[in-house]
Amino acid sequence: MASDPIAPLRVNHHKQFELRDHSTDATLGWHKESAARELGRVKLRLDVLQQRLFAEKQRSVVLVLQAMDAAGKDGTIRNMLSGLNPAGFRVSSFGVPGGPEAQHDYLWRVHAEVPAKGLIGIFNRSHYEDVLVVRVKNFAPRAVWSKRYEHIRGFEQLLADEGTTVVKCFLNVSKDEQRKRLQERVDDPEKRWKFRLGDLDDRKLWAKYQQAYQEAIGRTSTAAAPWYVVPADRNWVRNLAVAKILLHHLEKLDPKMPPPEDGIDGLVVE
Amino acid sequence: MASDPIAPLRVNHHKQFELRDHSTDATLGWHKESAARELGRVKLRLDVLQQRLFAEKQRSVVLVLQAMDAAGKDGTIRNMLSGLNPAGFRVSSFGVPGGPEAQHDYLWRVHAEVPAKGLIGIFNRSHYEDVLVVRVKNFAPRAVWSKRYEHIRGFEQLLADEGTTVVKCFLNVSKDEQRKRLQERVDDPEKRWKFRLGDLDDRKLWAKYQQAYQEAIGRTSTAAAPWYVVPADRNWVRNLAVAKILLHHLEKLDPKMPPPEDGIDGLVVE
Repeated sequence: MASDPIAPLRVNHHKQFELRDHSTDATLGWHKESAARELGRVKLRLDVLQQRLFAEKQRSVVLVLQAMDAAGKDGTIRNMLSGLNPAGFRVSSFGVPGGPEAQHDYLWRVHAEVPAKGLIGIFNRSHYEDVLVVRVKNFAPRAVWSKRYEHIRGFEQLLADEGTTVVKCFLNVSKDEQRKRLQERVDDPEKRWKFRLGDLDDRKLWAKYQQAYQEAIGRTSTAAAPWYVVPADRNWVRNLAVAKILLHHLEKLDPKMPPPEDGIDGLVVE
Repeated sequence: MASDPIAPLRVNHHKQFELRDHSTDATLGWHKESAARELGRVKLRLDVLQQRLFAEKQRSVVLVLQAMDAAGKDGTIRNMLSGLNPAGFRVSSFGVPGGPEAQHDYLWRVHAEVPAKGLIGIFNRSHYEDVLVVRVKNFAPRAVWSKRYEHIRGFEQLLADEGTTVVKCFLNVSKDEQRKRLQERVDDPEKRWKFRLGDLDDRKLWAKYQQAYQEAIGRTSTAAAPWYVVPADRNWVRNLAVAKILLHHLEKLDPKMPPPEDGIDGLVVE
């Protein structure tokens, strides 16, 4: 695995995790010119494995994407799924909980979105917000959120044991790159609808968010549900890395086409 | 609208509907060579309108796809959504109801899948199975299924009144084209997993299904939730027609980007 460029992105649960050790602008030995072709190859393979997973209908996969604003969660999802079978993927976006969501424990709405056997779920934000924004903005006291790492490990272990692979990516963008991207949203009339003044409040809390991410990632990267820290300052690196991470886990699952029903061989349809 | 090629596909609720009046292999005045370019243009426009619908977050759309086996529901979905934003669409596949689904009325699981504001839901099969397979195979007595047309009209009217546009497409394949496609599934090891011997039982009931479709479409094509009968013997016609039908309804909705928050103009991100 020494030559596998995604292996170093994986957070090793046996050692202390330091977010600052992870680059935001690494190229992972890739070149922009050849990365598009490589992504094409990765996606052809993803397509084959997704179809087998779907036909097999025994296991499912959740890919969690977490990041600071403008790190590219939406762009990653769009880039990765473009050209793949939309019926095999389900994107779930978790916003500020409201209504019945807010009247249940924080894992309730997430559990409901776990994909059925055969499907791959992409979580745009997730239950991790409940140890991130909730912690940073004091939406719940420490006594409440500090117990959640344990709940989350338990929940993800349950999913793994019952056939749902959970893979988690933190899209790691630098504070300066975020500044450029937010400024672009302000300046570009086509992108302005995505900008909220509240984004600046979160930006002011950058250091606290980094600390919250560090603890969340460090305490919940397990063998059953690993975290990957993906350099996200360059979109093309981020896109290829996330696609390769998903591919790696699908290869490990190695889904198989089910055998055809008996009596099909040589059948003539009339 | 005389020059609009999709208008004749729409089922006029003011007159008696006869399925046999609808061609399975029409080209609608299109040419295969230029259809791919035209589909590209339609999808660029779909992309823009989907993004506005998403940003506006006021309305949603359901596109129902119904058809006999091998008419190409899966292919249509994949073809149409490829390259569009996967976070803006949600594909819901309705199989044989089981577990809690079977312990509720037939609209319960469908209602639960109605997309949230801002999203476009694609229904691969739907509540229409409850007046199709259920009728043809006598899974419920006439006294039960015959009341459902009225329920369905009421349900779809509710959705329309509350901001969800419902558009329904019947992918109209000929019996002979279905034979060719099922034979291909039998003969091609890559496609064989999709084939069930039960598909042949349904094929034997072709005339009864046509009759059930005719009544379902005729009785539930309303101004609020119209049916379109799409010629499906040629995949390229089917794909372009369904994309144009969805585009037509998005154009009618005419979603608008929300205005930016006050105080954003000229803002400098620090």
